[in-house]
Amino acid sequence: MKRCDCIRKLLSVAAAILISLSMTAQKGWYRDKTDPMPVVNPDKTVTFRYYAPGADTVQVNGDFLSEKERPALMKNNGNGLWEFTTSAPVQPEIYTYSYIVDNQKVLDPLNMFVWRNISDLYNIFIIPGERTENYQIKDVPHGTVSAVWYNSPSLQMNRRMVVYTPAGYEKGRGKYPVLYLLHGMGGDETAWLDFGRAAQILDNLIAQGKAEPMIVVMPNGNPSQEAAPLENSNGYNLPLFYLPKTMDGTFEESFKDIVSYVDRTYRTVRKKSGRAIAGLSMGGFHSLYISANYPELFGAVGLFSPAVSVQEESKDNNIYRDIDLKWKAQMEKNPPLYWIGIGNEDPLYQDVASLRKKFDLCKYPYTYLESEGSHVWTCWRIYLEEFSQLLFK
Amino acid sequence: MKRCDCIRKLLSVAAAILISLSMTAQKGWYRDKTDPMPVVNPDKTVTFRYYAPGADTVQVNGDFLSEKERPALMKNNGNGLWEFTTSAPVQPEIYTYSYIVDNQKVLDPLNMFVWRNISDLYNIFIIPGERTENYQIKDVPHGTVSAVWYNSPSLQMNRRMVVYTPAGYEKGRGKYPVLYLLHGMGGDETAWLDFGRAAQILDNLIAQGKAEPMIVVMPNGNPSQEAAPLENSNGYNLPLFYLPKTMDGTFEESFKDIVSYVDRTYRTVRKKSGRAIAGLSMGGFHSLYISANYPELFGAVGLFSPAVSVQEESKDNNIYRDIDLKWKAQMEKNPPLYWIGIGNEDPLYQDVASLRKKFDLCKYPYTYLESEGSHVWTCWRIYLEEFSQLLFK
Repeated sequence: MKRCDCIRKLLSVAAAILISLSMTAQKGWYRDKTDPMPVVNPDKTVTFRYYAPGADTVQVNGDFLSEKERPALMKNNGNGLWEFTTSAPVQPEIYTYSYIVDNQKVLDPLNMFVWRNISDLYNIFIIPGERTENYQIKDVPHGTVSAVWYNSPSLQMNRRMVVYTPAGYEKGRGKYPVLYLLHGMGGDETAWLDFGRAAQILDNLIAQGKAEPMIVVMPNGNPSQEAAPLENSNGYNLPLFYLPKTMDGTFEESFKDIVSYVDRTYRTVRKKSGRAIAGLSMGGFHSLYISANYPELFGAVGLFSPAVSVQEESKDNNIYRDIDLKWKAQMEKNPPLYWIGIGNEDPLYQDVASLRKKFDLCKYPYTYLESEGSHVWTCWRIYLEEFSQLLFK
Repeated sequence: MKRCDCIRKLLSVAAAILISLSMTAQKGWYRDKTDPMPVVNPDKTVTFRYYAPGADTVQVNGDFLSEKERPALMKNNGNGLWEFTTSAPVQPEIYTYSYIVDNQKVLDPLNMFVWRNISDLYNIFIIPGERTENYQIKDVPHGTVSAVWYNSPSLQMNRRMVVYTPAGYEKGRGKYPVLYLLHGMGGDETAWLDFGRAAQILDNLIAQGKAEPMIVVMPNGNPSQEAAPLENSNGYNLPLFYLPKTMDGTFEESFKDIVSYVDRTYRTVRKKSGRAIAGLSMGGFHSLYISANYPELFGAVGLFSPAVSVQEESKDNNIYRDIDLKWKAQMEKNPPLYWIGIGNEDPLYQDVASLRKKFDLCKYPYTYLESEGSHVWTCWRIYLEEFSQLLFK
């Protein structure tokens, strides 16, 4: 049979362009391999390989290594190929990694999967297992994920946020409760979606009947920013790591614009019992103060590894003032489901312990989860799984 | 005034984690720089710098270089820093680039902006100018971009597509025309959105009154695939470059599932004059055959650098058989706006010239744009700008 002319031509065109653009000189060892990188071995150890014949040192770094181990030195096999295999099996999780070649961090040329955290990129890989089941895309009904722009009169700005509507929303007529899910410092409206796997977690928990169908609203918590990098009018300029106005009350005061837009635009349950707010790190700080200042709005609050203390110069701000009185009012009448989670190695652990002590003294009810780990996404994905199953029951 | 304790703590936590994860050894020259990379000089030449003290050769590659120039050799300044400045100003456009260090393609560690094309990543940069105005995010009303899953009975699969609804869609009650916009071989439902800048182009043209408000539907044209990499159940496995069933009639036959879902789910103008179909390369091939087989569906057809010829073993397929008769029927009754664009250096140029010759002989009306350039996104963004302004008038 005569071979396909058209596909051959298209492939040769595509290949010619790819080659001319990027692969001209890629004649190294690795293009014969079809294994994805890194290689997960049958015993669940993981092998990393980086080709750098001229380098003095090559290291691999990432959260699959313990703090003591990282970065790990790789060994030159003599042909310019540097190798490292973990000393023990790696537990099921989604991990980040990168290489350091002669003191410069570089990405893995053999792994196309990357995640942008603030202004840095990391490669990512997964060790599949029970822990990661809900992070995967399964053959279950999927919600819709939308990037929408809303007007914020308080900030005098059009701003972007990400909205998850559960499977069946478009076809149905019913009203849905809403979880407002906030990111940490330096993050943006894409964080929970990308590395947080929020859409996959909700799709899977809802399909299993473990979580109620809900809308999840992921706003941008940096009030000086319209949207994430490349999605805002700064174009291709790099963002600052520390953005202004993140913890001075501005975002908290403007939050009503978001709730108002969501209630106007979606079929929502427009009452306290139909709204939850949760966030990680700075987003936990935002959730704490937004829910305390607007206690009529939220029936559930989730603080994931939250920042707690207010900066000195903002202490007189309306939002942060008299927090003890605000908590009292919040807890006295229809106390919300109040959920706190933190890792046992989190640098913010003591601050959260102080908050819990205050709550304990006042006999404010809350649910507490202390997990293994530090100030990392591994914890936050678990907290979202736990918290979302308690909502809107 | 006492400095902010909380932000200081959060920053130190964040910095500690970033450092431990990725930046430990980054003590090179470049971390003092705040310039984004590459550096666009005042005379619009562009300077690239890559730090690789042990390398024998470092090259920079990308579509900002002419085919003769690429890849360009960089010069070692003696301190391990390799430099290259373009010999002439670079014209306003969005470009891709990467480095080649001792025969291995690597990304720029100083540029967080990347684009995934099939299974390869490229850095991207922009030279701002009149040409790129509509690719930027401006302070205009923005449409909503949604990733939605639809059921395809023909393919017996739930599949993902991207849908742009123009600003005002959520608030209004009116019906909107729909442009179905298809990607090329190896691409997926994210291609037009990411590097194609389709949402920005439509936002800006609609805001300027140059294009009618329309819904743009960007399906996945690989019928063996539910969704783009990382968005499908293959998880973190690398995709094949050549996916099966892309040009054997399967996608064309299943296309009615997409139209049917869109007409059921959105407020659409449900008639021929309210539908257009266009695509690049393989997506041009799909547009050609879908519109010829279902002439009652589409009032406008756009072929952007289209593949034209059918593979030998598929020639008897229902979809590809008797194309001359189908064109005759398509062109005789309410002939659609038929638009063809191709670059003067495109390897598919001759195939498109043959198609035009056929159309000319039959006196089928069509609009033709021959642009500078090859089989590249630079052309396809321009074609989308041109074509979308002619629709639904």
